[in-house]
Amino acid sequence: MNTSLIPNNSLITATPEDGRQLAIKMARLVIKTTQPDDSIRKTLREIYEKDAAMLIQIGQVVATEFSTIAAANHYWASADRLDA
Amino acid sequence: MNTSLIPNNSLITATPEDGRQLAIKMARLVIKTTQPDDSIRKTLREIYEKDAAMLIQIGQVVATEFSTIAAANHYWASADRLDA
Amino acid sequence: MNTSLIPNNSLITATPEDGRQLAIKMARLVIKTTQPDDSIRKTLREIYEKDAAMLIQIGQVVATEFSTIAAANHYWASADRLDA
Amino acid sequence: MNTSLIPNNSLITATPEDGRQLAIKMARLVIKTTQPDDSIRKTLREIYEKDAAMLIQIGQVVATEFSTIAAANHYWASADRLDA
Amino acid sequence: MNTSLIPNNSLITATPEDGRQLAIKMARLVIKTTQPDDSIRKTLREIYEKDAAMLIQIGQVVATEFSTIAAANHYWASADRLDA
Amino acid sequence: MNTSLIPNNSLITATPEDGRQLAIKMARLVIKTTQPDDSIRKTLREIYEKDAAMLIQIGQVVATEFSTIAAANHYWASADRLDA
Repeated sequence: MNTSLIPNNSLITATPEDGRQLAIKMARLVIKTTQPDDSIRKTLREIYEKDAAMLIQIGQVVATEFSTIAAANHYWASADRLDA
Repeated sequence: MNTSLIPNNSLITATPEDGRQLAIKMARLVIKTTQPDDSIRKTLREIYEKDAAMLIQIGQVVATEFSTIAAANHYWASADRLDA
Repeated sequence: MNTSLIPNNSLITATPEDGRQLAIKMARLVIKTTQPDDSIRKTLREIYEKDAAMLIQIGQVVATEFSTIAAANHYWASADRLDA
Repeated sequence: MNTSLIPNNSLITATPEDGRQLAIKMARLVIKTTQPDDSIRKTLREIYEKDAAMLIQIGQVVATEFSTIAAANHYWASADRLDA
Repeated sequence: MNTSLIPNNSLITATPEDGRQLAIKMARLVIKTTQPDDSIRKTLREIYEKDAAMLIQIGQVVATEFSTIAAANHYWASADRLDA
Repeated sequence: MNTSLIPNNSLITATPEDGRQLAIKMARLVIKTTQPDDSIRKTLREIYEKDAAMLIQIGQVVATEFSTIAAANHYWASADRLDA
């Protein structure tokens, strides 16, 4: 399966932690699609990783992606209940 | 069918990856509708594709569009389960 | 029916494309209500239609309006299935 | 009933247009609560009503408020169906 | 019950107006937790209460908090219907 | 269980207050993952904790994370009803 925007072409993950990692990857892959040049992205990364406002905005994007992933996984309800 | 804002006039896609591509297209088509001049959009693209803050904001728009598309597709639940 | 914020006073549309058009209109009508002077809005439009960051933010507003319209129309589910 | 943040202390409205008006009022009343001085708000209004970026952000707030109001009213489904 | 982020440790309120007040309090308590120094917050308040763009952003945060509170209270549906 | 993005790898919390604390932690852990250098993050914190606009944006991220956590916990409905 050849995908560029969602690893494994699925929103389903084993755990919330995995869902969170997926949210970060999905957010990054949109930026990669919009700016495919690796060297430009590297330069931009050096900017945003030292910019408080941009880091907070990245947090906003990840939170939004994660809300979709969490809903897709029914908030990992059965896993949580098995642990309880 | 003559559409300018949603390809195929449908939110339904075969896979999450396709849904993600649709989210990006839908985000771009709103900008195209608001600024229909191809040469101006080309100039603007040269700006935003090298601007970390704008790339992050594009990620936010795509995340929001995708949340709607994912809900429309019931998070591609049956496809995921068939693959599992 | 005299309305100024939602054409036809309804969130129901025939297709996703129509829903998208409605989202753009609803976003514009809030701005028109907040700034009713046509000449000032024309001046502002000349600014935002050439500003990449503002165009992206317009995309964000439209995405948010559309998520509500899509839910109101049950994501146009039956129409999609009839076409499928 | 003495309220300062939601007129009539209810999210229920007769029509989508009324719901949209309520969204705008709710957005304004939060600002009024945060900045209760009428003359300062008047000065601020003169700024934001001529600022394209701020008008777009107001559109974002109204869209978010409206999504809650629309859900509370089940998207005015029965009214729409009676008209259909 | 010793809480610092949600008064009474509950999202349930008697009315929409109370839910709106809770949304404003919850938004403020996150800022208080991030910046616990009262005198610094007082200085910051003098800035944002006279800044149109920041007041609009506060409106956005309150709208987001309120959408969660409204869902938790089933949009105060029975109260609304008893009044009707 | 070795996690870096969600403490205890679960969205389930005992109370709304705990859910709110989790939202703040989740928001911080995304920033930590994006900028893992402790001394840089300390410098950035000194900036954003004195910047009104950034504190408001942090409030927005926390509100978004919390909406997901609250849904995962069914808005802590049974706990609220036991207290009522």
